[in-house]
Parts: sequence; structure tokens; C-alpha cells
Amino acid sequence: MRTLNVALGERAYPIRIGRGLLDDPTLITPYLKKPRVVVVTNDVVAPLYLQRLTEALSAAGVTVAATVLPDGEAHKNWETLNLVFDDLLRSRCERSTTLIALGGGVVGDMGGFAAATYQRGMPFIQVPTTLLSQVDSSVGGKTAINHPLGKNMIGAFYQPRLVLADVDTLDTLPDRELSAGLAEVIKYGLIRDPDFFLWLEQNIERLRARETDALEYAIERSCANKAEVVVADETEQGVRALLNLGHTFGHAIEAGMGYGAWLHGEAVAAGTLMAAELSRRLGWLSTTDVARIEDIHRRAGLPAHGPELPVDRYLDLMASDKKVEGGRLRLVLLETIGRAVIHDGASVADISAAIRARGQ
Amino acid sequence: MRTLNVALGERAYPIRIGRGLLDDPTLITPYLKKPRVVVVTNDVVAPLYLQRLTEALSAAGVTVAATVLPDGEAHKNWETLNLVFDDLLRSRCERSTTLIALGGGVVGDMGGFAAATYQRGMPFIQVPTTLLSQVDSSVGGKTAINHPLGKNMIGAFYQPRLVLADVDTLDTLPDRELSAGLAEVIKYGLIRDPDFFLWLEQNIERLRARETDALEYAIERSCANKAEVVVADETEQGVRALLNLGHTFGHAIEAGMGYGAWLHGEAVAAGTLMAAELSRRLGWLSTTDVARIEDIHRRAGLPAHGPELPVDRYLDLMASDKKVEGGRLRLVLLETIGRAVIHDGASVADISAAIRARGQ
Repeated sequence: MRTLNVALGERAYPIRIGRGLLDDPTLITPYLKKPRVVVVTNDVVAPLYLQRLTEALSAAGVTVAATVLPDGEAHKNWETLNLVFDDLLRSRCERSTTLIALGGGVVGDMGGFAAATYQRGMPFIQVPTTLLSQVDSSVGGKTAINHPLGKNMIGAFYQPRLVLADVDTLDTLPDRELSAGLAEVIKYGLIRDPDFFLWLEQNIERLRARETDALEYAIERSCANKAEVVVADETEQGVRALLNLGHTFGHAIEAGMGYGAWLHGEAVAAGTLMAAELSRRLGWLSTTDVARIEDIHRRAGLPAHGPELPVDRYLDLMASDKKVEGGRLRLVLLETIGRAVIHDGASVADISAAIRARGQ
Repeated sequence: MRTLNVALGERAYPIRIGRGLLDDPTLITPYLKKPRVVVVTNDVVAPLYLQRLTEALSAAGVTVAATVLPDGEAHKNWETLNLVFDDLLRSRCERSTTLIALGGGVVGDMGGFAAATYQRGMPFIQVPTTLLSQVDSSVGGKTAINHPLGKNMIGAFYQPRLVLADVDTLDTLPDRELSAGLAEVIKYGLIRDPDFFLWLEQNIERLRARETDALEYAIERSCANKAEVVVADETEQGVRALLNLGHTFGHAIEAGMGYGAWLHGEAVAAGTLMAAELSRRLGWLSTTDVARIEDIHRRAGLPAHGPELPVDRYLDLMASDKKVEGGRLRLVLLETIGRAVIHDGASVADISAAIRARGQ
């Protein structure tokens, strides 16, 4: 088991990475205020892992209840969140009860937001079961639900007390979702870790084959990169925005196609290629750089082009994204492979050309 | 103008108390990140004060939009909150836009929760227009909405950047609401400030007559008391719970009668008399103490008895309040006038007897 510490002062917490973690309640019990937990999960993950987690905790004397949500980004909304509140209130959970989010990014986002707001805050533990959530959404305390007018528009910064990334859970992950997780892994190499990008160019097939060593290393290194950024800028006033490489384009794809049609990682992959293309047009990346970025995405099983969506629709959706300041679009672009910058000087013509170059 | 500082470290903020504050934009503009604000108010307050605030800010070069909510505790729910999110998103407000809550406790709670969660947090200013919100809900960062199964069950701790308590706005406050505010003023005397309780016994009629000096003094002293408690315990892990004197009984009254039938302050007044009666039964307060407490409430225009509601209904509603730990009811009781304690040892029989003694 590998352990990484997210050094957020009094909100510091450990991330544990390894196999068999779900079966070891002693990893969890030291972080409970009272021996009572509510597990928030979904109807895909529950049949696979809920019983294992429940039995392990029950054997350790912890009272366990569960709320099973419908699976999918399309359900990341107030109505579904209210199922959690209804259960918490009906079973009269106290604010000393701990909420455990068992599932992917949607479960983590909703479970985290429920924990952040139920009785103004209850303790929270993340047990991410997808590669995407293990390397990205479980680190950094961002929680949210979607609004019909925008993704992640309602949420909170709320740190978990513990993250357990059990690599076992990746064994049942569909190939498409594994690839979607790799999009965020590749991102860390692109924005701030050129050595990791080189490692990924050499090892991407080992990750797709789910080799334990490779997965544990990639998860740890991704989380370490994210944790460093989050510690430097917990509430995204500055450098944390660099983590959004490809996300402004990507969010437009997700919203434009209807949440759930494209996986978040797939949209980020296509968005990253758009950001790379725009960076090339600004004279920062070479054609070779863009080809390397396209190549690693293809080998990871990810799309290198966006869906059929009019450029105007992209621009409109991007304008309502959170990354707008003073009416100018602030984009994360690449100065080189391994170094990202925030740039608000790209012309609409260049942005449109980059979208078109990477459109269907 | 009086100024009080709430010393919450990097979340510190000033409370300004006086007349004519709404007309002076220089009190507000130093606290804006960008010259753009959204005022959240309700359909009772808007006709009275929205134009004044808007004109003052506009003259200072601030872009002002407004969201007018229906008035009343019955609307403190997700559906109404969503009107704020809809407006913020439709007008593409950025997270650098400041939300100003102009109104009473409900507007402050909802505006604050909207600010806490819109794009995971936007700057927030409170302009409380009722005595209750000036002395209580605008200080301390508690924000929330109600859930059908419980009051204030979904919320966040989120501090404003500034509180402007303009005493002018009390001139239009109905007598009944002024009295409701006095319930919380009296509370500070009872739980931690015996000298202030004596002052109130001498000056309660001056407050009901809305004499400026008396109001400013009572607001400042109330806020100072609350601020001291909040600074000692921002997220209510300990002493902050003392502020809930009368509230567990009071919340049962509000929920049991249907939100809005009893004003919050009226319910707290009746609840405080129940807590006083229970404190007498435990041998802490004398009969004379209870009579003094009843007298000041009556002179403040407040009920000294609860509504017709079965004792079992009280107990059931109180059990689902947030003040339950380990299944035992934690009540705020009075050791003496001026000193409150948290007590979880009262028997159901004694609690029931206290409710009955102060029932209709």
C-alpha cells in the first residue's frame, strides 16, 4: 500500500493506494467520529463492492446504512442529491455520522456535496472506484452538482478525511472508462510533469492491461501532482486552474452532447487536443508536440477529435463555463509538453479554428 | 455609526451599525472584488429599500442586478433557492460577482447559501433589514435552507465580507417582527451577559418604541456577544451551541405548526420559557428567576407559552433536530440568569413536564 499526504493544514488527509483496501476496516475506523456511517453509492457499484465494504465495517462494530443512487452524470442533479438527504434525515443521521462515497466521480461529487451541506457539514471519506476518480475527483475537495444551465455550477470546496483508492476496483471497470481515466493521468504529464509524460509514452499499454505496479505508480504520481497544486491553491484563485487543461472545451462537449453521452475523460481528451492545436497556432507547441499528444491519447483508447457540434455552440457553451473573467475566455494552454499557462488573449478566430481542426 | 469586528482570522469581517448606511456606497465598494453585484431580496423588502441600495451603488459605478424572492420562511427551500441560481446563471454571473442579501433571516440564509455554493463560492455581503437578522442570523456565517423533514437541515458555514445593519430599515418593521427580534436580544442576556439582561429589564420599552440610541446599543451588544461565541467556535463543535437556548423547543414549534405560522423569535421565546421551566425543575433557576424571564418576554411583546401541540409531537420533532448526539437530546439550559449550559441528562418525564407547563 502506498500513502500520500495532502498537506492542507488542519484539513490534511491521507490518500491510500493499493489492493484489498476495502476489506480492511482498520484503514477506515481511525477516521470515524462515531461508529456510524452512511455509504453513498450507485446501482452499478453497489452489487460489486457494497457488501464487501459493509461486511468489513460491520465486523469492526460500525453501523452501516447505504443510499444507492442511479448511475451516471445525467443524475448528478438536485433531485438525486435529495435522495441522499431524504435517507439521512429519515434515519435521523447526526452530524457526527460519516458519509462514505463509494463509486466514481459522480458519486464522489454528490456524496461530497451532501456531506458538505447536510446539517452544514458531516465527516466525509472517499472510496473512488474508477481510475478517473482515483486520480482526479477524489483529490482536492471539489464537490458539486450540475444545473440545467451548466456543469458543476452548484457545489462546495469540502475536504475528505481519507481517500482509499483500492486498485482492485479497477478490475471491473469497463475499458472505455479506464481510458477516460487515462485522459486525466496524461493531463498531469502535460501540464507540469514532463518526466511522467515520458513514462506514460513508455508504459501506456501496461496501464491499459491493468498491471498493478503500473496502475499504482500512475495513480500515486497523478495524485501527488494534483495534491501539490491543490495545496498551493485550495480554492482555485490561481494555479489550480491549470488542472483544467482541455476542460473548457470538454465541458462544452459534455453539455452540448447532453451529459453522459461523452464520458468526462473522453471530452477532456478531445478538449486537450483542441487546446494543443490552439497552443500550436499561438506558436508555442510544434507540430511534432501536437502529434505526440495525439498519439498518447490514441494509444490510451481516447478520441483525438470532438463530436459533430457547431463552432458557435462551442463558443456559447464555453462562455457560460466558470472559467470566464471580465467577459474574456481564460483558457489553459501549453507552452510546451510539461508546462501549462492560463491565457486570455486568444482571438475568437483562433479558438474557432482550433475547434474546427479538431472537430469531427 | 458603530463598527464591530468579527475576528475570524482570514475570514474576519466588520459589522457596521447605524442610520443611513444604505445610501453610502463607500461602505460597500471596498469589499467588492469586481464592480458587479447581485442583490437577493424579497417582495416585501424590495419595494422599500431595493431602489435606494441600487441607486447608491449604481452612482458609484457598480453594475447591479436583483433577484426578488417570495417572502417568508415557507419559501426557504430548494425551489426558491433555485430562482437565485437560475438568475445567476442566466445573467452569466462570474464567481467574482458579489451577492448582497437585502432582507431578514430567510433572505440572509438563502442568499448566503446561494453565495456559498454558486460555483463553489462567491463573495457575500449581508444587509439585514429586521432586528432578528441584525442581531442574530447576519453574524456567524450560518446559512441554510429547510427540508420537508427539518429546519435548516441543508446549509453551509460561510462568512460574509461585510454586514451593514442599517437601523433605518427597522422603522418599517411590523411590531410583531420587532418583538420577534427582541427574543434573540434577550437570549444573549440570558446565556452569557447578566448586565445586559439588567439593561434590558430597564430599557425594553425604549426598544419597542424604536429609540435610535437604544436600538444601536442593543444591536451592538448582541452582535458583540454573538461574535465572541462564534470566534471561539466557528463550526459549532462546542460553546456555539449555547446560542441555541430555546431553539430545540422552538424548532419543534415552528415545524409542528408549519413554517411561518409562528415567527422564529416567537417560537424561541416560548422555547426559552420551556428551557427555563426545565432548568427550574433541575433545581438551577428559582421561581423568581423564571418569573423575571417570563416578565421580560411579555414586556417585549412575546408569547410566554407555546401553541397547542401534543407533547409527543414535540418530543418527536425535537429528536430530529440537529442537537441530538448519541440518541440523547442535548438541550441548552440555564444555570442562572446570565449563564447557560449544555445538558443531556434531562429525563423525558421532566422535558415533557416543562413542555406541558408552558403549553397552551
